Amino acid sequence: MMRAAPSQEEVRRHNLGTLLRHIHLRGSASRAELAEGMGLNRSTIMALTSELTAAGVVREELPRDTPRRAGRPSLVVRPESTRVYVLAFDIGVDRLVAARVGLGGVILERREATRPRVPFDPDELVGALAAFTRQLVRRTDRDAVCVGAGAAFSGTVRRADGMIRYGPNLGAIDVSLGNALSRRLGLGLTVSIGNDANLGALAEHRRGIGAGCTDLIYLHGDVGIGGGIIVGGRLLDGVDGYGGEVGHMVVNPSGRRCACGSRGCLEAEIGEHALLANAGRTGAGRVGRDAVRAMVDAAARGDAAARDALHRAGDWLGLGVANLVNVFNPGMVIFGGTLRDIYLGSAAQVRSRLATSTLAAPRERVKLRTAELGDDTTLVGAAELAFSEVLDDPLEVLARLRTTAAGRLPDRSGSNA
Amino acid sequence: MMRAAPSQEEVRRHNLGTLLRHIHLRGSASRAELAEGMGLNRSTIMALTSELTAAGVVREELPRDTPRRAGRPSLVVRPESTRVYVLAFDIGVDRLVAARVGLGGVILERREATRPRVPFDPDELVGALAAFTRQLVRRTDRDAVCVGAGAAFSGTVRRADGMIRYGPNLGAIDVSLGNALSRRLGLGLTVSIGNDANLGALAEHRRGIGAGCTDLIYLHGDVGIGGGIIVGGRLLDGVDGYGGEVGHMVVNPSGRRCACGSRGCLEAEIGEHALLANAGRTGAGRVGRDAVRAMVDAAARGDAAARDALHRAGDWLGLGVANLVNVFNPGMVIFGGTLRDIYLGSAAQVRSRLATSTLAAPRERVKLRTAELGDDTTLVGAAELAFSEVLDDPLEVLARLRTTAAGRLPDRSGSNA
Repeated sequence: MMRAAPSQEEVRRHNLGTLLRHIHLRGSASRAELAEGMGLNRSTIMALTSELTAAGVVREELPRDTPRRAGRPSLVVRPESTRVYVLAFDIGVDRLVAARVGLGGVILERREATRPRVPFDPDELVGALAAFTRQLVRRTDRDAVCVGAGAAFSGTVRRADGMIRYGPNLGAIDVSLGNALSRRLGLGLTVSIGNDANLGALAEHRRGIGAGCTDLIYLHGDVGIGGGIIVGGRLLDGVDGYGGEVGHMVVNPSGRRCACGSRGCLEAEIGEHALLANAGRTGAGRVGRDAVRAMVDAAARGDAAARDALHRAGDWLGLGVANLVNVFNPGMVIFGGTLRDIYLGSAAQVRSRLATSTLAAPRERVKLRTAELGDDTTLVGAAELAFSEVLDDPLEVLARLRTTAAGRLPDRSGSNA
Repeated sequence: MMRAAPSQEEVRRHNLGTLLRHIHLRGSASRAELAEGMGLNRSTIMALTSELTAAGVVREELPRDTPRRAGRPSLVVRPESTRVYVLAFDIGVDRLVAARVGLGGVILERREATRPRVPFDPDELVGALAAFTRQLVRRTDRDAVCVGAGAAFSGTVRRADGMIRYGPNLGAIDVSLGNALSRRLGLGLTVSIGNDANLGALAEHRRGIGAGCTDLIYLHGDVGIGGGIIVGGRLLDGVDGYGGEVGHMVVNPSGRRCACGSRGCLEAEIGEHALLANAGRTGAGRVGRDAVRAMVDAAARGDAAARDALHRAGDWLGLGVANLVNVFNPGMVIFGGTLRDIYLGSAAQVRSRLATSTLAAPRERVKLRTAELGDDTTLVGAAELAFSEVLDDPLEVLARLRTTAAGRLPDRSGSNA
């Protein structure tokens, strides 16, 4: 609660982090734009960019495609995306993705595998991700440096230590996946883990349709229904990191049993199982995002069973959204994963529920939108989680980058001297 | 998004505000405690306290009741509670309260009136509050200075201008109460208005059972059901200030019609009307907090109809709380207003619902508690709203206090020179 004004060292860390965050999120900026945006004079901006340039984090160059004008064009600061990167993992029910993501948010390279629907074996999972990592790291430039790692997991994750507390659709309980993955990668990096929908919210807030919106709700459809909520520009994660479990909000107290033990949760009513069962589309091979999307397509083509199931889902989805609008007064609700398709196929039902079940005041400015980053929301969010730590405290990474000779991966298991 | 490091002026404002906030919330602190808590050296603390002492905002004195020790005891800094005060108003359905609240949160004096249950006439309301204010201000010491004013209102309030957007139990829509009240008081002060449950949350977070808990939910029972939510230490108010309307979360889609037009809202199921009707306790004079409390008492004495209605309410209340626990992962849920009594009479039902309808992870550390500030939560919250502005920017108030000769109320309608 009590915090004194910052020291000189903190001021420098803050300014470097702010400048770097700006370059990371915008892709590029001129010194003049940075000076104006940060309220600092040009010589301070020059000192900051020089420090980042010397460490090889950004570069300054003439702008591309500038219209011919009088005078010398201002230099543009760009991220060194291929040199400074993070590892991002997306651990979904049906697929596993690993990627190298460069500063600036560029997905440089990716590996992807489908997963069979069996409860996951943590060792096997960690082994698969480590194998992907070896392939990704092997192909980097000699001077590239991995500065962090983040993973999105389809379940409930404890913030303090990355412990998986609940992942019914993956079958994991009380597994310390963060620690296991950090050890197995052997890169001297801590792998931060977050709930996939929370990270989807972060991604859409920073790089997607929600950019500039300080209060938004991201709803993610996969096998289950997840949620990520941005309040006042920050991810809501509660006292232990479990915040945002909107899929287990009860919308229908006399409804279907949910895997969590409760009844009538949003996930029980509109998750993949309920959706496909209501449409009579169960059976061998009919699982996953493709099956849900096939059902939405069938509804569009006039399949009555599919259409009725979809409209029913839209009604429950609308009720869930209405509750969230009353509670949060958000500026935007974003539908991602399979909820993107479900929302598009049942927008009339969603909007109708919203009209009847919210107060007029919180409803009047809320925008309903679909995720801009498509099926990469959660992966991009994992990368942002990894970058967050670098941007919050760039000094340590800058020191490492300066001393890392000719781009070998840092090995911090040895001496710190 | 982009913010440069603070200037010297901002540092001074920040440090003065931080020190003042500490004294305001704790009641008193020694210079040594302030130095340690703020991470500043003693000479800086001395300079800051001297500035506040000179303006008559705090005083330094020998500690009371200190055990005898070697050496001179450290001076203790205390708020000048009778000199520096705010006006706080609580505009409830059944009562109107006005109070002078001194720095440090001391209620110095109050006026209270009951209201008949008729739609309110804004002019009449503003007139009644202005009359209270004249009485309160007349009785202050000669050097006392009013530094702000805040009001709690039982309805939906737009942050930007204090416009009442919805107040079904008071009958107000689209009234600019903040402006009207500011003008009528004629003190040269802006009256900030907030939703009563939001302000109750603020009060319990700062001065009540929720002190030190960064993520909490306050549920307020009056005629309707309100909510105030603290996320990461800050009040959740959404894009326009309407956040926290948990009373209009639908818990029973096939339930009772709600005054808001929806069906099965928490308020429709457990608000005063439903509660008394379910217990068969309707009729002349059976309204208000007293009627609800009489019903809870009757249930405790074995009245079967009252007990059944109460337990049914506890079940719906538990479902609402369960949804909020899944969505927010709060450290505490606080029951205030009549919900304090309802919760105490149906805690078994609330806890039972919580056990069946939340995920284990967000449930394991949540505490269920009752409001510590009793029926004054909303009034205290209104005072905190008024003090917030002073604490966020103490420089302006300090300048006014220094120039206010012999304690007359400031008149800013004249020249600014």
